[in-house]
Amino acid sequence: MPHLPLGHGREFDLLRAIYTRLGSAAAPLGDDCALVRVGGATLAASIDASLEGVHFRTDWLSFEEIGWRAAAAALSDLAAEGAKPVGVLVSLGVPDGGWGKGEGGRVRQAPAQNPAQAPAVEIMAGVAAIARSVGAKVLGGDLTRAERYFVDVCVLGTAARPVRRRGAQGGDGLWVTGRLGGGRLALESWEAGRRPEDALARRFARPEPRVAAGRWLAARGARAMIDVSDGLAADAAHLAVASGVALDIALELVPCWPGAAPLVAAASGEEYELLVALPPAFGDRQARAFARRFGLPLTRIGTCARGAGVRLSDRGVAVAPPAGYDHFAPRP
Amino acid sequence: MPHLPLGHGREFDLLRAIYTRLGSAAAPLGDDCALVRVGGATLAASIDASLEGVHFRTDWLSFEEIGWRAAAAALSDLAAEGAKPVGVLVSLGVPDGGWGKGEGGRVRQAPAQNPAQAPAVEIMAGVAAIARSVGAKVLGGDLTRAERYFVDVCVLGTAARPVRRRGAQGGDGLWVTGRLGGGRLALESWEAGRRPEDALARRFARPEPRVAAGRWLAARGARAMIDVSDGLAADAAHLAVASGVALDIALELVPCWPGAAPLVAAASGEEYELLVALPPAFGDRQARAFARRFGLPLTRIGTCARGAGVRLSDRGVAVAPPAGYDHFAPRP
Repeated sequence: MPHLPLGHGREFDLLRAIYTRLGSAAAPLGDDCALVRVGGATLAASIDASLEGVHFRTDWLSFEEIGWRAAAAALSDLAAEGAKPVGVLVSLGVPDGGWGKGEGGRVRQAPAQNPAQAPAVEIMAGVAAIARSVGAKVLGGDLTRAERYFVDVCVLGTAARPVRRRGAQGGDGLWVTGRLGGGRLALESWEAGRRPEDALARRFARPEPRVAAGRWLAARGARAMIDVSDGLAADAAHLAVASGVALDIALELVPCWPGAAPLVAAASGEEYELLVALPPAFGDRQARAFARRFGLPLTRIGTCARGAGVRLSDRGVAVAPPAGYDHFAPRP
Repeated sequence: MPHLPLGHGREFDLLRAIYTRLGSAAAPLGDDCALVRVGGATLAASIDASLEGVHFRTDWLSFEEIGWRAAAAALSDLAAEGAKPVGVLVSLGVPDGGWGKGEGGRVRQAPAQNPAQAPAVEIMAGVAAIARSVGAKVLGGDLTRAERYFVDVCVLGTAARPVRRRGAQGGDGLWVTGRLGGGRLALESWEAGRRPEDALARRFARPEPRVAAGRWLAARGARAMIDVSDGLAADAAHLAVASGVALDIALELVPCWPGAAPLVAAASGEEYELLVALPPAFGDRQARAFARRFGLPLTRIGTCARGAGVRLSDRGVAVAPPAGYDHFAPRP
């Protein structure tokens, strides 16, 4: 029976049930991207859906930001594979009001007679902006009437040396790009009825997939990599299961967004930073080279060890892991 | 300014507005598939969304049929390009009830504790069945909580000699595979509260994308091809615009599903047959070879000519074209 190397949760139970039922019809799953040989290259592909009311709200984000964020989330999967983006395909669901005058949204909508500034056009402009910034084209799409907005993005790239979730070894260092916790802080602010301050709102609305960073890390021998979309603790669990190692994470080392406590940073989903296992020889000198090149910290937060599971500690004291981000779990 | 070669309609106006806004960020659009060079091969890719309440109803189809039909619709785009399927990626939207006991659907649902027979698993089993039948793997996916079911399928294939919508020339014959009109008849039956008879229900619920037929036609010099998803008349208009030709179609030659009048057959959407322009030398002998090989008629229904637009006639008398299928138009 095939085994899908994922952590715990209702979503993952269902994914395992699907994978079991598919049997030989399924390619090996359980990575950020599917990998398939095309011509003489390795194609990396991933699909990522963003839904109004689940992943975004039109009173929090402009339509352009909605498109940007949806595409960035999918492109982050290419980043985590160390892949070079080629293009995106987008399925767009648009309510009747999305054609012109209609419901809310920070972007004012054009009259129904003029589709040039319709929300669907704004969404695709956001998709195109982030795609262009990482060298990808908008290859195609589908446009459908829907009750609520949705943006489903399939990304395609090529990977000369794909980095999987499996491959981490005991003794490897565990590193993370950027700072974590901004996603959760931004959500908390909006949920309390306050617009987050600009840097925080931008962090949430226009995340930057770590595509160049992912390729750099792949070229420097990254052994295993995953993007932080379910939250650091949950994604570390996926990486630990896939690699068959334990991960020791020191919370006091986790780089936090200003104002975010380490445990909040470790639970915050949709961060789109990279969690990466690097060989023991990778050290502070290389991390400084990374920081200079990308204007972004690369921080060692722990170690891969023999064993299983994720072990969090705070200054040497064990800490229970936070719940991961699960779209199927009741929202707080 | 880029020009998107599509016919008329509200959906196509919005697509043109999007394409104009994307500018150089967009690859050439307006074909059944995007084509991109990867590793010395030509990759063909397309994405196609199916939504509950727009494309399917859970009281008409089983969940397995919903998955089959959604994937078949996307695979039909590969067929129209003459491409060889490689794999599919699927975004699945599942309401809370889709995890176990819940709303309707012909498939009985397992208790919430056992996801093995959950609707999401049935949907993916349908996707896998049609994918396997054309040599494609399920490469990956995304699973999301949603208010209503949706199945968004991205298909990937390779095309040694892709057939575009452009390329038809004056003097080419215009041919269609299979018989048209079954889709509309099935819908009418369900909308009247009657389950269609078995062959008709199967035609609607388990369409067979003409993948092998499309590759056969490509190898025999097909000049332009499109799948009949918007309806024969509307898709002929797309092909005419893309190729810069007029299409003369004789309705009395259109192969009809038993009980479907030719004008109904010409308007019926989501048929997933192929409309193809073949050089003048392609004749009845080759069509008989096609029929023997695929157990499916290949019928000459008209001619490509200099000019523009689609000209329908019935035994020599001009007939006004039916409205195409447009998801954004009010439903009858």
